[in-house]
Amino acid sequence: MKIIVLGGDGFCGWPTALHLSKTGHDVVIVDNLSRRNIDNELEVTSLTPISPMSVRLRAWKELTGKTIQFFNFDIAHEYDQLLKLFVDYQPDVVVHFAEQRAAPYSMKSPKHKRYTVDNNLNGTNNVLCAIVESGLDIHVVHLGTMGVYGYGTAGMKIPEGYLDVQVVTEEGKVIEKQILHPANPGSIYHMTKTQDQLFFAYYNKNDQVRVTDLHQGIVWGTNTAETAMDERLINRFDYDGDYGTVLNRFLMQAAVGHPLTVHGTGGQTRAFIHIQDTVRCVELAISNPPAKGERVKILNQMTETHRVRDLAQMVANIAGAEIQYLENPRNEAAENELYVDNQCFLDMGLEPTKLDKGLMLEVTEIAKKYVDRCDRSRILCTSKWNQSATAEPLKVHAKV
Amino acid sequence: MKIIVLGGDGFCGWPTALHLSKTGHDVVIVDNLSRRNIDNELEVTSLTPISPMSVRLRAWKELTGKTIQFFNFDIAHEYDQLLKLFVDYQPDVVVHFAEQRAAPYSMKSPKHKRYTVDNNLNGTNNVLCAIVESGLDIHVVHLGTMGVYGYGTAGMKIPEGYLDVQVVTEEGKVIEKQILHPANPGSIYHMTKTQDQLFFAYYNKNDQVRVTDLHQGIVWGTNTAETAMDERLINRFDYDGDYGTVLNRFLMQAAVGHPLTVHGTGGQTRAFIHIQDTVRCVELAISNPPAKGERVKILNQMTETHRVRDLAQMVANIAGAEIQYLENPRNEAAENELYVDNQCFLDMGLEPTKLDKGLMLEVTEIAKKYVDRCDRSRILCTSKWNQSATAEPLKVHAKV
Repeated sequence: MKIIVLGGDGFCGWPTALHLSKTGHDVVIVDNLSRRNIDNELEVTSLTPISPMSVRLRAWKELTGKTIQFFNFDIAHEYDQLLKLFVDYQPDVVVHFAEQRAAPYSMKSPKHKRYTVDNNLNGTNNVLCAIVESGLDIHVVHLGTMGVYGYGTAGMKIPEGYLDVQVVTEEGKVIEKQILHPANPGSIYHMTKTQDQLFFAYYNKNDQVRVTDLHQGIVWGTNTAETAMDERLINRFDYDGDYGTVLNRFLMQAAVGHPLTVHGTGGQTRAFIHIQDTVRCVELAISNPPAKGERVKILNQMTETHRVRDLAQMVANIAGAEIQYLENPRNEAAENELYVDNQCFLDMGLEPTKLDKGLMLEVTEIAKKYVDRCDRSRILCTSKWNQSATAEPLKVHAKV
Repeated sequence: MKIIVLGGDGFCGWPTALHLSKTGHDVVIVDNLSRRNIDNELEVTSLTPISPMSVRLRAWKELTGKTIQFFNFDIAHEYDQLLKLFVDYQPDVVVHFAEQRAAPYSMKSPKHKRYTVDNNLNGTNNVLCAIVESGLDIHVVHLGTMGVYGYGTAGMKIPEGYLDVQVVTEEGKVIEKQILHPANPGSIYHMTKTQDQLFFAYYNKNDQVRVTDLHQGIVWGTNTAETAMDERLINRFDYDGDYGTVLNRFLMQAAVGHPLTVHGTGGQTRAFIHIQDTVRCVELAISNPPAKGERVKILNQMTETHRVRDLAQMVANIAGAEIQYLENPRNEAAENELYVDNQCFLDMGLEPTKLDKGLMLEVTEIAKKYVDRCDRSRILCTSKWNQSATAEPLKVHAKV
C-alpha cells in the first residue's frame, strides 16, 4: 500500500515508517522537525545519538534498498502542501502522529498550552479536511492516548472506545445506547486528543472518512527490529522532565546513580506498550481497516498495566537504586486502579513484549551505553499543572 | 460588575452589550469586526442599516450618558492583547460570543471549515488560558448551541447539559453516572461548540475556572428594548443563505413576494428564542454564577420548539406567501422530535417572548420597512454539507 506517515521523524513515527517500509509498503514521511526543534528550546538532546533525516534515509536505502521520501512542512499551517501531497501521491493510508505529545510540555506555560492546542487541533482538522477535498478514500490511522478516558473509572474495565449505557426516560422507559466513552483528560495535551475524537466522529459521520483511532498507553523501549539494524537508524530516547516517560526517567536515574523519583505515592496505575508492539499495532490497524461507512474504529493499544511505584521497584531491582518520593506536580488522584480491554489487537495476532522480559536490554543497551550523553540536570519534571501544584521533595523519603 | 463582551459587534453581542450597560454594568466590547468583513466576502449586507461601531457608541453615550469602551483585535490570534486587557481592566465576567456562528458558512469550502475551526477553538482556548494566566476569578459566560446535542434524541427530553446514565459492569453491578451529554454535531460549526465543551470541562477541573455555557436555540427577532431606541443602534438582520436563519429567510421571501423555501419535508424541529430573551438570559446567567469549584453550569437557552414547515405556515399566514419544498443541502434526518428542558431560566424568572406574539412586528417593522435594501439573489442557501448533497428544487411543489 501507499502510506504517508505524518510526524515520521518522531519517537513513534520513525520506527513505524521503517517497519511499514520493511513489510513492503511504499512510505512517505512528512515532518516539520518540531520535536528536534523542541529539543533546542528545552536545551536537551535524545540520549541516543539520532541522525539527521537525510542520514537516516540514506542508511535505510543502503541497508534495504528501499526508498522513503521525506517532505518537511507543517501540516497544521501549510494546508495547501498537505492537499497537494494527497492528490499527487494518492495514498491508501495516512498514519497521523503529527501532534505535540507530551503532557508536561503542554502544561509548561500559556505559550505551550496554546501551541499544543493550535498545533494538534488544526493539524487533525487539516488532515481530515484535505482527505475530503481530495475526494480520495484514505484510511486515517491516528495515535490517540489511553488518557482520553482519564484514569480511574470506578473499577470498571475500560472498553475499546465506546461505552454501553442505559438511560431511563421520565416515563421510566429504559433506552440502551452505545456512546463514545466520556472524556476525562488530565492535561492540555490529553484534552486535544479528546477533541480529536470529535473531529473523527464528525468527519466520519458527514463524509464517511474511514478512521482508526489508537488509544495508546505509555510507550517504553527504544529500538525495534529495524531501528536496531544500524546506529544511524537509532530511535530517540527522551529522559528529560517533559518528554521522558516515567520509565525512562527511572532508567536514567539508575544509570547515573540518582534515586528513582516517584511522584506522590506512586499509586498511579498506567498502561504500557513496547515500541516494537506500537509499530506492529499500527501495521495490524492498517491491515484491518474499517469499512466505508463504518463508524470510527477505536482500539486500545497497550499490553500491560503497572503502578508507578512497582515500576520503580522493577528498575531498582535490575539496576540497583534507591527510590525517592516527591510531591506530585500533576493534578490527579494519588492512587487509581486501571483495567483495560485490549482484546482487538490480541485477536489480530499481537504477541506482546512484556516489561519483565525487555527491561534488562534497556538498562544495558541504552541507559548504560549512552550514559555519558546524559545531562543530569534535565531529568526532573518542572512543569506544574496548576497554581497549587509543586515539585518539591516530600519530607518522607523511602529506601529500597 | 465589570464585563467584557467578546464579539460585541455581532448579532447577539451588540444587544447584549447594550442591555448589560443599561442595567448598570460597566461594559467593554472586544471585536475584530469579522462579521462585517464576512459581509464583504459574501457580498451581502444586513437588511437593517447597522452603523459603524464609533457611531453606535456615540449614540449610546448621547442617549444614556453611558460609555462603552471598544477594542478591535482578534482574540484567537492576539493573545497578548487579550491578556493585557484582562490584567488592566480586571473584569468580573467575560461574555464570549467571539466565534464564527453560521453552520452553512462553516461548510462552504475547505477554507471556511478551517477558518471556523482555527478561529473558534483558538479563541476559546485563549480566553481560558488568559484567565488562568491573569490569576483573576473571572466568570466566563459562553454562547453554545442546542446543536451540540444533535437533533432527535429518541423522544427523550434534552437535559441541561448533563445526562444521567447507568453502566452495567461485567459482574452485573449497576453504576450510576452523570456525564456530559454525548455530542452529535451536524456541521463543522456545531462540532467546534462540542469541542469548546471539552475546553470548559478541562479548565474548570484543572484550574477551577467558573463557566456558564448557554446552549442556545435559533435566535429570531431583530431589536431589543435598547437597540430600538434609535436607528443608529439598530441590530443586524441577516437574510442571506449563510447567516440568515430559517425564520429570517421566510420573512424576506414573504416581503419580496418569493415562495417560502422549505428544505426537505420541513419536518425538522428546532428550538427558538427571541433576541430580547437572549440578552435577558445572559443577564440572568451573570447574576446566577456557578460557585468556585462548581462544575460547568450548562443552561438550555430556548423558549419554544417548532417544525420548520409550521414556521413557514405561520409566516405565510401573516404575510401571505406560497411555500416551496427544496432538496435539503444539510446532511440530517428528514423529521425529528425535539423536547428540551429549559427549567433553569424559567426558575430564574425569564418570561419568554413567543413567536405568535412577536412575529407580526418583524414582518412590519423590519422585513417590509427595509425590503428595498434586500438583494434577492442572496436569500437561498448554497453551501452543501457533503458531496452527495444538492440544493436543487424538488420535483414536488406545495402551495398554501
